[in-house]
Amino acid sequence: MEEQIKEALAEIQRGTAEIIDIERIEKLIRNYFEKGENFYVKVGFDPTAPDLHLGHTVLIQKMATFQKFGGIVQFLIGDFTATIGDPTGKSETRKVLSAEQVLENAETYKEQVFKILDPEKTEVKFNSQWLNELGTAGLINLASNLTVARMLERDDFSKRYASNTPIAVSEFTYPLLQGYDSVAMNTDIEMGGTDQKFNLLMGRTLQKAYNCKKQQAVLMMPILEGLDGIQKMSKSLGNYIGVTDEANDMFGKVLSISDELMWRYFELLSSKSLKEIEDFKDAVKNNTLHPKKVKEDLAIEIVDRYHGKGAGIKAKEEFEKVFAQKDIPTDIKEFELENGIWLCQALVDTGLVKSTSQARRDIKANAVSLNQEKVQDEKLNLEVGEYILQKGKKSFAKIIIK
Amino acid sequence: MEEQIKEALAEIQRGTAEIIDIERIEKLIRNYFEKGENFYVKVGFDPTAPDLHLGHTVLIQKMATFQKFGGIVQFLIGDFTATIGDPTGKSETRKVLSAEQVLENAETYKEQVFKILDPEKTEVKFNSQWLNELGTAGLINLASNLTVARMLERDDFSKRYASNTPIAVSEFTYPLLQGYDSVAMNTDIEMGGTDQKFNLLMGRTLQKAYNCKKQQAVLMMPILEGLDGIQKMSKSLGNYIGVTDEANDMFGKVLSISDELMWRYFELLSSKSLKEIEDFKDAVKNNTLHPKKVKEDLAIEIVDRYHGKGAGIKAKEEFEKVFAQKDIPTDIKEFELENGIWLCQALVDTGLVKSTSQARRDIKANAVSLNQEKVQDEKLNLEVGEYILQKGKKSFAKIIIK
Repeated sequence: MEEQIKEALAEIQRGTAEIIDIERIEKLIRNYFEKGENFYVKVGFDPTAPDLHLGHTVLIQKMATFQKFGGIVQFLIGDFTATIGDPTGKSETRKVLSAEQVLENAETYKEQVFKILDPEKTEVKFNSQWLNELGTAGLINLASNLTVARMLERDDFSKRYASNTPIAVSEFTYPLLQGYDSVAMNTDIEMGGTDQKFNLLMGRTLQKAYNCKKQQAVLMMPILEGLDGIQKMSKSLGNYIGVTDEANDMFGKVLSISDELMWRYFELLSSKSLKEIEDFKDAVKNNTLHPKKVKEDLAIEIVDRYHGKGAGIKAKEEFEKVFAQKDIPTDIKEFELENGIWLCQALVDTGLVKSTSQARRDIKANAVSLNQEKVQDEKLNLEVGEYILQKGKKSFAKIIIK
Repeated sequence: MEEQIKEALAEIQRGTAEIIDIERIEKLIRNYFEKGENFYVKVGFDPTAPDLHLGHTVLIQKMATFQKFGGIVQFLIGDFTATIGDPTGKSETRKVLSAEQVLENAETYKEQVFKILDPEKTEVKFNSQWLNELGTAGLINLASNLTVARMLERDDFSKRYASNTPIAVSEFTYPLLQGYDSVAMNTDIEMGGTDQKFNLLMGRTLQKAYNCKKQQAVLMMPILEGLDGIQKMSKSLGNYIGVTDEANDMFGKVLSISDELMWRYFELLSSKSLKEIEDFKDAVKNNTLHPKKVKEDLAIEIVDRYHGKGAGIKAKEEFEKVFAQKDIPTDIKEFELENGIWLCQALVDTGLVKSTSQARRDIKANAVSLNQEKVQDEKLNLEVGEYILQKGKKSFAKIIIK
């Protein structure tokens, strides 16, 4: 049993950015193995945006891990603030939702997360239930537990205060409400991104202030990089893989990531054990395994997860067929170029030709294609987008312009 | 009618420390004279301390003035914060009150203020009525109308923040609640002490934010000095005249104030017109009127107000009788001396004797009395209190030790 507990803890700690009170987590896991006792793992979700991408699933995968070891997931839909909206009216992203919309969005969430989570071990909660009950006096009492100075220590608040960017007094209540959710739900462990640290710790502070028996442990997951490998995966940046993406798109997007980012995705997204992943790494290092092969494995696993067993292999075959038809190799070199770049310069920059005058001659000779179409205009400039540039039969380059 | 309006405005402005939006007040007064329209004048009172002293009546007198010119007084009992208490638990003065206690205290207030105010033109209000209704969402909306930076501009907050003295987030809600009271009651004019300026202006800010038709004017009265003429009149300092003080005490306390403070009390507490007061001043200056005579007039007016017509004259007669019986003149010089002073030194300091050795001889000769009793012990020291010191038949001094 000690071995099982040790393995469980290793799996829980996998890929985490920071854990506060690991001792508490160990106790909870031990209690589960020894006495079969369950515990509560809370994660909050924004009800206005029920479309999940893989960035969100980093947390959801971790929730699933806890479910294996006694965790009952508190899937908390933060509908309270959504139903009051953003009182400052300054944030366009915070829309006011009706109760019907909240329930509708909750259904969308369920459809998506129950591909990863066990519904039997998941409680979907809405915080409007207890936050409305708080009332004026309850909220003032809640707000008495924190000082203004402590609140202004929060990274974004301190920056805004220092730069004279207005902070509405109401904004001070949001971390308090998030912390109070943990009081109301008797949460044992709260999870979130590293950017949520201040708010996650609020749960501990308030559970103490409200004389809860114990204070929650906090587990923070890193922010998943998007397809570019640099910026946070996000819808607005367009560098995401959506949970509801078509199988073929999903497969293609995973294949498009760099080898380096692939290992990061393995750690944070794959169900493969750390041992298996290490073995892959060694094999690639020793040249006994091509990294593209490993990437395909990851892509198949992810597609299977969201589209059902077998969907991954089908997507792989489809992908190969399309590329084969187009005579485009699947491991083209990528180049990120300036917006508005002259096509002839792009041909030079990607190494397909030696000079712009050579490029012009090749275009005149009908030897240059852009996205499978022959280029006629040698004065062409490239705007934002992704392009497959081809010279002759065998020279390819992928151009990305942001 | 123009003359009446002008006189009304002069009476309203009498003794004020600051008025914001006098134009609005002029319009309200004009509307009353021209169309008989009423308007609302709000003043907030703390339900935990229903014992009023003359410091409070400065405001209440002004409320009475407004009642003469169309004002309906909103006598607001701030019971909401009293029923939740001080959530920080740091302030001993803010006790939690039950609903019964609040009603009881309200009755005590009424008994006292209806000696000055016209009950027909007074609405007694309790802010728990609308503040409880606000609820969690309503309070957050309310708090969205002010920035943290603006709140920290409030004098006491800025000092505490600068000196790292904790400010609970909940404390930011109190000025907001006070401002919201004006929204809920549709107040036209709010009055308060100069120390309330930030909170009084909050009503204007919030009436604008909540799209009220008009923003309240603000009228601030100065803080009345206590009997010592220096510090603010307050119960804890012991330098007050209570509204419920016995008639004789009240009379004696008024007579004890300095001539300078007397004119201040006339301006802020007397119902005499400014013209009458000027006439008094001139007469005193020209030595055609003894200041003590004027002080007696003021004392009689104040005693009459709280104990009924005729009570002032009775108190004056009583006062004179007591002093006459004791052969003590009523205009003894006062001296404030150090706690623990040696009696012989006090005799020198008050000018009753030339040296402490002379004092010792006088005590031995049975020529010194303290509060009408012969002093036997020449080593006596004087503790905190008030004493009448007498040497021989005709030399008196009053000693005050704080």
